[in-house]
Amino acid sequence: MGLSLLPKEEQYFDLFTQMTLYISSAARELKEMLADKHGDYGEYAQRIKGLEHACDELTHTISTRLNKSFITPFDREDIYMMSTALDDIVDLIDDAARAIIIFDVKEINEYARDFANVIERMAEQLKEIVSTLKRPRNITQRLVEIHRLENEGDDIYHAAIAELFHDAQDALTVIKWKEIYEKLEAAVDRCENVANIIESVIIKHT
Amino acid sequence: MGLSLLPKEEQYFDLFTQMTLYISSAARELKEMLADKHGDYGEYAQRIKGLEHACDELTHTISTRLNKSFITPFDREDIYMMSTALDDIVDLIDDAARAIIIFDVKEINEYARDFANVIERMAEQLKEIVSTLKRPRNITQRLVEIHRLENEGDDIYHAAIAELFHDAQDALTVIKWKEIYEKLEAAVDRCENVANIIESVIIKHT
Amino acid sequence: MGLSLLPKEEQYFDLFTQMTLYISSAARELKEMLADKHGDYGEYAQRIKGLEHACDELTHTISTRLNKSFITPFDREDIYMMSTALDDIVDLIDDAARAIIIFDVKEINEYARDFANVIERMAEQLKEIVSTLKRPRNITQRLVEIHRLENEGDDIYHAAIAELFHDAQDALTVIKWKEIYEKLEAAVDRCENVANIIESVIIKHT
Repeated sequence: MGLSLLPKEEQYFDLFTQMTLYISSAARELKEMLADKHGDYGEYAQRIKGLEHACDELTHTISTRLNKSFITPFDREDIYMMSTALDDIVDLIDDAARAIIIFDVKEINEYARDFANVIERMAEQLKEIVSTLKRPRNITQRLVEIHRLENEGDDIYHAAIAELFHDAQDALTVIKWKEIYEKLEAAVDRCENVANIIESVIIKHT
Repeated sequence: MGLSLLPKEEQYFDLFTQMTLYISSAARELKEMLADKHGDYGEYAQRIKGLEHACDELTHTISTRLNKSFITPFDREDIYMMSTALDDIVDLIDDAARAIIIFDVKEINEYARDFANVIERMAEQLKEIVSTLKRPRNITQRLVEIHRLENEGDDIYHAAIAELFHDAQDALTVIKWKEIYEKLEAAVDRCENVANIIESVIIKHT
Repeated sequence: MGLSLLPKEEQYFDLFTQMTLYISSAARELKEMLADKHGDYGEYAQRIKGLEHACDELTHTISTRLNKSFITPFDREDIYMMSTALDDIVDLIDDAARAIIIFDVKEINEYARDFANVIERMAEQLKEIVSTLKRPRNITQRLVEIHRLENEGDDIYHAAIAELFHDAQDALTVIKWKEIYEKLEAAVDRCENVANIIESVIIKHT
C-alpha cells in the first residue's frame, strides 16, 4: 500500500503530523492531570489550552494555504476535513480539562482515568499513522486498534453513566460528571472520526 | 416535475432508498419499544443498533464510491450531504434508545410516545419520497407534511420540557428525561433537514 | 486591502448584509429582553423567532442561488459556509430566548445581561464588516475587537458556571441556567466563527 500523492499535497502531511504531536501531548497531559492526586489541575489545564491554541494556528495555516493553492477540490475537501477533525480532538480534550477546572472537581474517579488512557492510546496510534502516511506501514492494524479503543471508550461511558445515576446522592455532582464524561466520550469519537477519514483517503488513493 | 440525473448519479438513489428503509425500521422499533409496557427494552435497543450499523456501512459505501467516481463536485457534495443527513437520523434514534437503556428508565411517558410517532411518520414520508426520486410524484405534498410534523415535534418538546420542570420532584429524573427529549427532538430536526436537502436538489435539477 | 470579487459573487454580499441586519436586530431584542424587569418575555422571544425565520429564508435563497450559479466550487464553498455560519448565530440567539420561555425563568441575572451585551456588540461589528466587504476599511481593527469580545464572553461563562455551582441550592435552577449560559456562549463562539471565515476569505482574495 502506498499513497500516490502529488508533492503539493505532501506538505500538508507535515502539518498533520505536527497536529498529531500536539494532540498526543494534550492527551498525555490530560492523563497525567487525572492521575495526579495532589497536583494543581490549573497548571495541566493551562498547558492543554496552549496545545489547543497551537493546533488552532496549524488549522488556520492549513486553511489559508489551501485557499491559495490550486489542488483539486476533491483533495482540498479531504485536507480541510482532516485538519478540522484533528482540531476537534484537541478541542474536546481541552473542554474536558476546562470542565474539571470550572466545576472545581476535587476527586477524579477511575472512569475518567480509564477514559484518559483510552484517549492517549488513540492519540498515539493516530500520531504513528499520520507520521507514516507518506510511506504507510501497519496502518490497517493501527486502524483496527483505534476502532477497538473506541468500543472500549463506549463501554466506559455506559458503565460510568450507569453508576453515576445509580449511586447518585447529589444532583449537582451528576450534572458535573455527566458533562465531563460526555466531553471525554466525544474526544474518543473524534479520534475514530479521524481514523475513518484516513481510511477513506487511503481507499481513494490506492 | 422530473429529475434529469445522469446514470452515474442514479446508483446513489438506490443506496439512499436502502438507507430510508433502515431508518424507517429503526423508527418503527423505537415506536414499538416506547409503546411496550412489559417488554425488554434492551432487545429493541439492540435491533436499533443493528440498523444503525447497517446505515453506517451504507454511508461508508457511498463515500467510498464517491471518492472513486468522477461526477462533478457540485453533485458530489449533494450526495455526500444527503447520506450524512440520513445517517444522522438513525444515529439519533439510536442515541434515544441507548439513553433509555443507560438511564435504566422504567416508565415511558406519553410525550416520548408522541415523539416516536412523529419520527416514524416522518421516516415513512422520507422513504416514500426517496424511493420515488427517480420519477417524483406527490413530493411537494409529502415535504409539506414533513414540515408540519416537525412543528408538531416542536410543540411536543415545549410541552414535555415545561411539564418536566413544572412537576419536577426529582432532579435526576429531570436530567434523564431532558436528554431523552433532546435526542428525540434532534431526530425530528434531522428528518426535516433531509427534506430541506431534497428540496434544494429538486430546485437545482428542474 | 480590497476584495477583487467577480460580479456574480457580489450579489451574495447584499444577502449577507441583510442577514447581519437581522442578526443585529435579534441580538438587540435579546439584550432588551434580558434588561426588561417587568416585560413580557414571550413578546421578545416571538420577535426573535421572526428574525430567525427571516434568516432561514435568506440562507435558503443563497443556497438555491448557489445551486443554479456557475461560480467556482472554491467560492461556492466559502459562500455556503458564510451563510450557514451567520444563520447559526441567530439560531442560537433564538435558542437562548426560547430556553428562557420554556424554562419559565422569571429573574434574569447579571451574567446573562453581560452575555447579551457582548453578543450585541459582536453582531454590530459583524454588520459593519459585512456591509463594507465590497470596499473594506477598518476590518482588521474590527476583527481584533471581535476576538477580544469572544474572550470576554469566555470569562463571563467561566464566572457564571462557577457561581452557579458554588451558590447552588436548587438543582433544577442549575440545569436551566447551565443550558441558557451554554446557548449564549455558543452564540458568542459562532460570531467569532464568522469573523474567522471572513479573515480566511480576505487572505484568499488579497
